[in-house]
Amino acid sequence: MTGFALRSKLLVPTLREPPSGAHCISHILLSRAGFIRQSAAGIHPIMPLGERVIQKLENLIDTELQSKPLYANKIRLPLLTSADLWHKSGRYFGAGDELMRLFDRKGKEFVLGPTHEETITHLVASLGARNSKDLPLNLYQTTSKYRDELRPRFGLLRGREFLMKDMYSFHETIACAHTTYSQVCGAYENILTALGLPFFKVDADAGNMGGTLTHEYQVLADIGEDDVVHCPSCGHSSNLELLPEHSQPDPICNREDIETGQPCIGSLQLRKGIEVAQAFLLGSKYSQVFNAKGGVPLVDLQMGCYGIGVSRLLAACVEVDSGHDAHGIIWPKIIAPYQAVVISAPGNAIARALYSGNAEEFSGLLGQSYQSGCEVLLDDRTKDSFGVKLLEANLIGVPYIVVVGKTYEEGLVELIIRKTGISQILPKEEAIRQIIGL
Amino acid sequence: MTGFALRSKLLVPTLREPPSGAHCISHILLSRAGFIRQSAAGIHPIMPLGERVIQKLENLIDTELQSKPLYANKIRLPLLTSADLWHKSGRYFGAGDELMRLFDRKGKEFVLGPTHEETITHLVASLGARNSKDLPLNLYQTTSKYRDELRPRFGLLRGREFLMKDMYSFHETIACAHTTYSQVCGAYENILTALGLPFFKVDADAGNMGGTLTHEYQVLADIGEDDVVHCPSCGHSSNLELLPEHSQPDPICNREDIETGQPCIGSLQLRKGIEVAQAFLLGSKYSQVFNAKGGVPLVDLQMGCYGIGVSRLLAACVEVDSGHDAHGIIWPKIIAPYQAVVISAPGNAIARALYSGNAEEFSGLLGQSYQSGCEVLLDDRTKDSFGVKLLEANLIGVPYIVVVGKTYEEGLVELIIRKTGISQILPKEEAIRQIIGL
Repeated sequence: MTGFALRSKLLVPTLREPPSGAHCISHILLSRAGFIRQSAAGIHPIMPLGERVIQKLENLIDTELQSKPLYANKIRLPLLTSADLWHKSGRYFGAGDELMRLFDRKGKEFVLGPTHEETITHLVASLGARNSKDLPLNLYQTTSKYRDELRPRFGLLRGREFLMKDMYSFHETIACAHTTYSQVCGAYENILTALGLPFFKVDADAGNMGGTLTHEYQVLADIGEDDVVHCPSCGHSSNLELLPEHSQPDPICNREDIETGQPCIGSLQLRKGIEVAQAFLLGSKYSQVFNAKGGVPLVDLQMGCYGIGVSRLLAACVEVDSGHDAHGIIWPKIIAPYQAVVISAPGNAIARALYSGNAEEFSGLLGQSYQSGCEVLLDDRTKDSFGVKLLEANLIGVPYIVVVGKTYEEGLVELIIRKTGISQILPKEEAIRQIIGL
Repeated sequence: MTGFALRSKLLVPTLREPPSGAHCISHILLSRAGFIRQSAAGIHPIMPLGERVIQKLENLIDTELQSKPLYANKIRLPLLTSADLWHKSGRYFGAGDELMRLFDRKGKEFVLGPTHEETITHLVASLGARNSKDLPLNLYQTTSKYRDELRPRFGLLRGREFLMKDMYSFHETIACAHTTYSQVCGAYENILTALGLPFFKVDADAGNMGGTLTHEYQVLADIGEDDVVHCPSCGHSSNLELLPEHSQPDPICNREDIETGQPCIGSLQLRKGIEVAQAFLLGSKYSQVFNAKGGVPLVDLQMGCYGIGVSRLLAACVEVDSGHDAHGIIWPKIIAPYQAVVISAPGNAIARALYSGNAEEFSGLLGQSYQSGCEVLLDDRTKDSFGVKLLEANLIGVPYIVVVGKTYEEGLVELIIRKTGISQILPKEEAIRQIIGL
């Protein structure tokens, strides 16, 4: 989206605190800066600035999953899932009180699912046996998911209604399922790297999902609810839950080197992680139940499932050390809601009118710059002081802040880099070039 | 999205009929061509081809609403709405059995709403009184909505879980609310015109929503469940429900001309319509209840709400006369899932291998054509005959079908225009130019 939006319409409620519950940096900053609100415990309306970030996260994920080698196709499964399917898979009772349930007017029961293995496997089965050539089949969606947490907290990090990207893969052979699993892990690593996040790929527990192989992607942050055991020497990481001896932590890695057969002598470190993604090889657990078959001779399809917690990932981007400072949020450029905020310098009434006209002109120039366009936020509020505008520009965490003032008549603007705080007086064309990234 | 996808992965279940219930052309064609499936009465998984169309409809709507004069901001409200809010507005009981309800683990009741007036008004009120300068405020979202229809039918035309774009506007004055109302009507007319749909703007009944002024947008199609009374002479249309004398239809319009004061002598016509959008002026019905105030002096905000049934609109595009023929769907170019389908010509085994290689090469050329790129669907199935591929290309309804065969070595391809059936043998560069629309 090219062009600029009017700042005053964005409902940025300055310095509001999240309403209640356990606080963390991302929850406080996202609430203060007007990205999210809270309507009930663990339930968050996404405000205009937040929706822009989510849209960009979705685009980043779409691009990665739809291109080589996964060529995944995007679908949209209904949120209302027949409870019958969950009974059939045996997960209905296993999910316990975390599963949200409802009845329609005719008494038929539905669940609002945390994941959609039942629905997708039933759907693929209903299309008939798959030809070998039509496999592997990679389908995914990004939709609202539900988990009725006993203690929702930390804003988007542990919500009851959240946005999740869930992908499901169908295969003729176990080997093919392993290949796709590796490809998805590659895609996840590309996404987390593009966001500049510190993360570990961690051996994990399959839990209620079932399956033969699973990894989590843990973003390192002190608020994280997972304990990750990491060896800096061999690079291996596990969820602490997996280690049977974790009541008596052994400081030495001891993991056997695949090539030499020697145990690793590295010292284990314990880190806190936010689980932002997980991959599972499911085998034929669901395909057998729902009769999803394919190949020659006809076999129960091998399946994988792969989730990214989209709203949680948004919060994790703020929570990590590089995602904030004392002044507010610092967005990774690739998902920043805008590339730049333009504000006008202080002055007397006549000067302010001139500067704000010039700020609007400069926003227009920047918004129409180059082919791709640039997303600019013009702070056109007249009542608020320059100081408030600068504070809030920093709080919102957009990569560049442009101050338009006295020197604009000479073709100069002030360009502040949010991340470093470095400020330069530059010719406006040069400022535009820097913002556009040329 | 540039480039091409593999046809065989798209789960097109050839010639499958919709599972049950009342059929209509759009339901039959969308099911046959693999755009949608059905998982329960009135509940439809959207398949890859359908999701591409929905994405384009959403983009079309986003562009129209986010630009001048509306400059609306996109948000994302939770689907779980506290039942308390619906009690407060008085709509909880009024909505009857159509309202889907559920309880969380602590016994708190939620509704899955058909619209979100309560949530948005409560949210805007929670941000504090609005400054005059921050009004009007236009907020919208495109999310799943719920209506537990007694008799869901006609596929996406009357579903229980459906996709809706809902916008809400907040104003200091009634005059300002009227201005926004007109602007939204303008935006809706732009959208329906861009889709090439025959439609009427129709005087309507506000029903359970409340409000002082309302219009529906009715797309003309025989399957439509609404009766529209239209006067071709003065151009005015009403929903038949509004006419008190509709048991004894009067064939003469009789509507008073605003300028001359004379009654219109046109003959009324009765047409069937699919309601795809509705606009309401709500006055202060919700703002008063939820205490959403603004302006100087502080007043209850004047509100408007405006919906587009996105999944219903998709079906309406197929249902209208221009949306299909005996061979299948004919998509409006602006929302076609792809711009072209590429298939290879028949021949012996050696020829087929050559042609399919060339078809892939041509798809690549087309996909990377020009700056904007072109969305190409390559039918790379080897088992299916040329006849089946051509039938299905027609069924899917993409604007152009390209056949790559013997003449490709001389730089020629066959270009078929789906809408007219006209076929030409053209140099490949010329075919690309036509498809790209240059």
